[in-house]
Order: sequence, then C-alpha cells, then structure tokens
Amino acid sequence: MIVELINTGQELLLGRVLNTHQQWLGRQLADLGHTVSRQVTVPDKGADIQQAVRESLTRADLVITTGGLGPTSDDLTREFIARLLNLPLHEHAPTLAAIEHFFASRNRPMPVSNRVQALVPEGALVLENPNGTAPGLALHVKPNSFRADEKPTWLVMLPGPPRELRPMFSNAVVPLLRRELPVETEFICRTLRTSGVGESSLAERIEKQLAPLVAAGLELGYCAHTWQVDVRLAARGPGAAQSVAEAERVVREQLGSFIFTDQEESLEAVIVRLMTERKLTLALAESCTGGGMAHRITNVPGASAVLLAGLVTYSNAAKQEFLGVKAETLAAHGAVSEAVACEMAEGARRQTGADLALSVTGIAGPDGGSPEKPVGTVFIGLADSTGVRAEKFFNPYDRETFKTATGNQALEKLRRKILAK
Amino acid sequence: MIVELINTGQELLLGRVLNTHQQWLGRQLADLGHTVSRQVTVPDKGADIQQAVRESLTRADLVITTGGLGPTSDDLTREFIARLLNLPLHEHAPTLAAIEHFFASRNRPMPVSNRVQALVPEGALVLENPNGTAPGLALHVKPNSFRADEKPTWLVMLPGPPRELRPMFSNAVVPLLRRELPVETEFICRTLRTSGVGESSLAERIEKQLAPLVAAGLELGYCAHTWQVDVRLAARGPGAAQSVAEAERVVREQLGSFIFTDQEESLEAVIVRLMTERKLTLALAESCTGGGMAHRITNVPGASAVLLAGLVTYSNAAKQEFLGVKAETLAAHGAVSEAVACEMAEGARRQTGADLALSVTGIAGPDGGSPEKPVGTVFIGLADSTGVRAEKFFNPYDRETFKTATGNQALEKLRRKILAK
Repeated sequence: MIVELINTGQELLLGRVLNTHQQWLGRQLADLGHTVSRQVTVPDKGADIQQAVRESLTRADLVITTGGLGPTSDDLTREFIARLLNLPLHEHAPTLAAIEHFFASRNRPMPVSNRVQALVPEGALVLENPNGTAPGLALHVKPNSFRADEKPTWLVMLPGPPRELRPMFSNAVVPLLRRELPVETEFICRTLRTSGVGESSLAERIEKQLAPLVAAGLELGYCAHTWQVDVRLAARGPGAAQSVAEAERVVREQLGSFIFTDQEESLEAVIVRLMTERKLTLALAESCTGGGMAHRITNVPGASAVLLAGLVTYSNAAKQEFLGVKAETLAAHGAVSEAVACEMAEGARRQTGADLALSVTGIAGPDGGSPEKPVGTVFIGLADSTGVRAEKFFNPYDRETFKTATGNQALEKLRRKILAK
Repeated sequence: MIVELINTGQELLLGRVLNTHQQWLGRQLADLGHTVSRQVTVPDKGADIQQAVRESLTRADLVITTGGLGPTSDDLTREFIARLLNLPLHEHAPTLAAIEHFFASRNRPMPVSNRVQALVPEGALVLENPNGTAPGLALHVKPNSFRADEKPTWLVMLPGPPRELRPMFSNAVVPLLRRELPVETEFICRTLRTSGVGESSLAERIEKQLAPLVAAGLELGYCAHTWQVDVRLAARGPGAAQSVAEAERVVREQLGSFIFTDQEESLEAVIVRLMTERKLTLALAESCTGGGMAHRITNVPGASAVLLAGLVTYSNAAKQEFLGVKAETLAAHGAVSEAVACEMAEGARRQTGADLALSVTGIAGPDGGSPEKPVGTVFIGLADSTGVRAEKFFNPYDRETFKTATGNQALEKLRRKILAK
C-alpha cells in the first residue's frame, strides 16, 4: 500500500508558513497502519500541481493533496486535477447551499468568489466542511491509466486551513480509508521519549543488543530534539508485536528512568497526568522563560486541576511584589542566582499554597550577559514541603531554544521530584 | 536557477516530528533571491535518498539535503550520496579533531560511533559545525552527468538538528551561495500581514484592482492563519520593484488599518517595537490563555524593556491574591465575565504600575462550558490611565487554536490602543 502526500502552496516553498499538514497527516495515517512513502511540496501553479499528481498516480494507491481549494485566484487544485483526469466540473447544489448557509449564519454576505467552491469533478465524493466553505473531494481513479498495472488509486483533496482539514480527515477520510483501503499487514510503532541523555550515548547503549532484531526487520529510529531524544521502534507483518515488545524490553533495561513516556505525550502532559493522579498542585515562578512553562502546562487539557498560578516576574520589582524576593538578596547575588531562584520558588509556593513550586531565572539573551554570568546561564529552583533547592544550567542557545531547553530541564526536575514522592 | 530541497527522515513521514527545515530554509533562500521549486521528504533508507537526489540532480542547480549525518544506524545520507556519485570517503583529520574536542570540552567520552562523522566524500567542502558533531558537506557535481545539459550542480548536505543546521547555513552556506550562485534577476517579495478580516472578503477588496498587475506577472498569494491573513506580493525581473510597490499601494488603500506589519514580524514583535518606541510598559493577566501571551511577548528580544509582569491566574484564589479581583465579583458574575476581565486588567495595572494592562478570561475547553457560557467564550480586558473596558469574543476551537485566536485578538486590541495613544 503506497501513500503519497502532495502539499501545494507557494507560501510553503517561500518559507512563509510551516507545513503542519505533513506531520499531522503522517501521524494520522501511521496510526491507521499506512506509512506515507513520499511527501512533496509544489507551488500553487496548475502545471506543477498536475505534474506532482501525475507522478504520484504512477505509483500510489492513495494520494492526498492539501490546499488550493479556496476561493481566491491562487486556488487551482480542483480545476487542474479535473483537467488532468478529463473530468468536467459541475455545480453541486447541496454544497452551494452549505456555503450560502455558512455566510448567512455568520450574518455576512457571500462573496461571489466563493461560488467556485461548489464545483465538483464528475464522479467525486464530496467531503463536507462544517468549519469552512471549501468541501474536500475524493476521487476513485479507476482504472488508473497512469499506472502500468492500471490498478485504481484513491485521490483525496483536502482544504489548506488546519482547522478545516483536520476534522474533515477524521470524520470523512478515515471512514473512507477503513472501508476502501483496509490494512492487510500488522504495523506496530512504539516511541520511547527520553530526557537527559545524548543521541550517540543513547544509541551506544542499545544498538548492539538490538542488532539481531534490526537484522530481522525491526526499524530503529532516533529523533533528537532540544534536551529530548525519541527512540522509535517499528515492525511490520506477522511477529511485529513480539519484535517491538522485545526491543522495548531492551531499551527500558538500558535507559531506565531517562524514559519519560511511551505514549508520545509531551513532558508537560506527563507532569499534568502524574500530578492529577497524586492530587498535587503546582505554582510556577518564571523569569527568563517568560510564561513559556505556564503556556506548555496549560496546553494540556485538565491543567486547571494542577496549576494554581504562574507568575511571570520579568522585572526585579515584580519578583519582590508577587514572590516576596528580598531586595537584599537581589542586591547581594543579582536576579540570576541560586539564592533568587530559591526565594522565587519558596515565594510562589507560599503565596499560592501549592504543593510544589518551580522557578526559573536566567539570561535568555541576546543581551544581558556578563563574563561571570554569560548569556545562557540559568538557575532552576524547586520547592516543596521539605524545603527548596536550586541547580545551575548553561544553555547558550538562541532565545527560543533557550526557553525550550530550560523548560525541559525544569519540567524534568519536577517529574523526578513527583516520582520520588 | 532551480533549487530543490530534500528532507530525509522516517520520523517526518510517520508524523513524529514537524518539518521546520522546509520553512526555515525556504525563507532564507527566498531572502537571497532563490525560490525553492520543489521540496520532498523521503525515508532514511539508502535507496530512497539516492533516488530523490538523482531526480533532483537531473533538474536543479542547487540541491540541499537535511538529516542523516548523525552517528547512528539510520544516518545514511553521507554514505549513500558518496556511493551515488562514485566518490570514495576519506577520514578528515581536522573534523575528527573537532569532534574529539566537542566531547572533551564537555567532559564526556567520545562514543566510537561518532568517528563516522569525520568521513568526507572526495572533493567535498567541509562546513564546520560548532554546535554539534556532524559537519555539513558541499559538493560541486561537475560535470553533472544526471543532467541532459551536464551543467554543474551544487549539492549541500546539512545536519538534521535545527540548532546545528541554522548557524551552519548562515555562516557557511550563505557565503558559498553568494560566491558560486549569484542571483541574476531581481526578485522582490513583500508580505502584508492583516488581522481582523477574512480571506475571501480581503481578496474581494483587492483582486479586481490588482488584476492588471497579475496579468503582467505579479504573483499574488494569500495565507490564512488563525485570526490573521497574510497577503504576499512578489515579482521577478526588471520592473519587479515597481510592480510590487504599485500593488502594495493598492492593498494599503483597500485594507488600511487591518495591516499590522509589512516586515513579516509577529504581532507580538510589533507590540514590543511600538511600546519600546513610546516608552510604554505592559502587564498581562491571563486565565484561559495560560501564559501563552506572556510567552509570545517574551519570545521577542528586548521584551524586558516592556513587560513588567505576567500573572497567570488560573484559579479564582490566584485572581484574588495577585490581582485583587473581588470575591463578590467572582460570585456575582463568575470568573468568565466582563466584570472579572475588567478587575483583572485593573488589578494587573495597579499591582505593577504598568501603563497598559491586558487581561483574558474564558473557557478554553474541552470541558467547563455551560449553556450560557459555552466552550470558546472569552472576555478580553484592557486598562490604561483613562479606565478599563472589556469585550466579549467567541472562539469555539480546539484548545491550542483557542489560545492562539484569543491571543491574537487581545494583542490586536492592544496594538490599536497603542496607536491611538
């Protein structure tokens, strides 16, 4: 079963936007047992879209395109795919009615340009779009004369905006795939996420022992993030589950507590889960991470059961006002110091009554460094009922990487503290 | 000048990670006047990498690969490209020394597996990697027998981790491109970012007037984000600057104050710039956005001159403790109300002494809604020396989209207030 993904959009090639469809669709398809074999991005020009679709039709059983179904002049997917396949376009009355309803329900006049979105290539299934105006389209290209074997190919066209594409995929495409392209061979994929160990050390600890499984077909992959390395174990066909389970046993034996999840959750989701289970509450006192940790924690549904408050105390005055950091401590040690990190964590815990409080103070840069405390210096404090301790880290990266690395180090400290409770 | 980008990595196709290289490199190249014509992702298997590189070599003047230069068993790019081009690999002594130094300076033993990273295909330029162990490689394929015209092609291999790839591109690849592949024709690209107007209404306002310029070669593109639509104007060749300038005049005339930047800055960067220029200070009081606004503001270098504090008051107790929201107001109106939004903004301003304070309280979901206040209900408050006002919005999206939309609406309100000052 060969699946190919075609993303259209000049803005993707010019780097004006991030291609989130590749990740989202790749993952949804993998969860269904389909692996995307190839993904390509082409400009939204008729000839480029046609060339990419033609190429994919020579190989694939399923081709998914994204983008180019909108109402504007750079939206060409529908029309040029219809032309490539010699299919006439007809106005689809229920779709036109849905588009008219979309505007009417929002008390907005319908721009004339949206009418083109009701055009449907002959024989296509219409995939409803409750979150926008462009319906998706699914064509069963049968026989597929682009393929040497003339086997049929499903060609699915999805709209570009993620909040239209995602529900449409889940509600309309998944049932279609389950019905029309059921998975024949078993596919098992397991990802173990680790924190605190580098990629090559990690590989060195496991590769020798995994070698026989790899020789027998286990796929072993790594992905290094900022202060996080994921180990991916995958296998196909009969025996896949056993092979992956055996590999996981080896990895767990070697990496132990470095593994923070086998559920592909984020570190913050693990924290919220662990604290909810243990009925623990949290307060955050952030300086240099500037709310990044609170943002991550509150991205997790259910965070309100755990997080009482986050204090983003960027200025010294705010550190004193909201956290009770002493003026003398600031004067004696500076805002970026072990002593201030401790007082921040203690203050956050005292003011909110949280069980645990995590604090961060450091120099994110690009300015503000000194010879004794260069850009990247950071102290992470953690307070609970038994006291407070702070630890120094050094993250001499760009501003956003600094925030991510520091956040991961702080959340990892917190995770270990929760598990030790 | 044809540029193609090849991203390698099974984790990209399985949707385990987001492909940020496409955006970052696409944009850097566009800024140099090179447009990526095609981007493809292939699995990290030798045959797939070779097939993609071979295909690109038949067309492109510049091919950039990312990933597969690491020390582990799924890192195959170096070896398989060398084989494709029949180039022997030699150990490069300065690179080996740099890798040894990398580990020594971190007091870590060098894993044996890293030694492979010192192998260099004959004739390749080595691109130093001060942020990791894998050097980049640049090969001048000359003559390029994969092309019908045998014209030479530059083939550049970059490491996968963004914080290694990005500085390497800026420090080593940009000078190489300026020297070896200077841009012949003028290329002008201008993006106007708007907030508060939908994509099709926006297009309707400008397309008729831009039609003659489009017919003459102007590229007009749109990109719809959450509560933000970008209009992209691009042109090539002699007259490009004039064509884009004329198009910009039309767009400005039609869209006026909806445009928040022509510098491709984020809305938060605009806020920090405007407030710094006007010497205004800011406090944030966030409930449902959970630190997301503070995180965005503090991603901007120089934010410390503007942001005094951000209070993430998730619980009612925290709203009272840190912002002085009255218990009676919470009891009478509920935490998600116009009255509480006003008291939060006033409280943040009073406690910090900031010139402006922005507050947000709402229901991000998935739980917590009611018939009167469904999930997505949100109030945004803004306080300054003249008083406080709050406005109701409705963002019935998933949790992260909710945070983004609400943050954009709040920051846009703040932008308009600053400009009115």
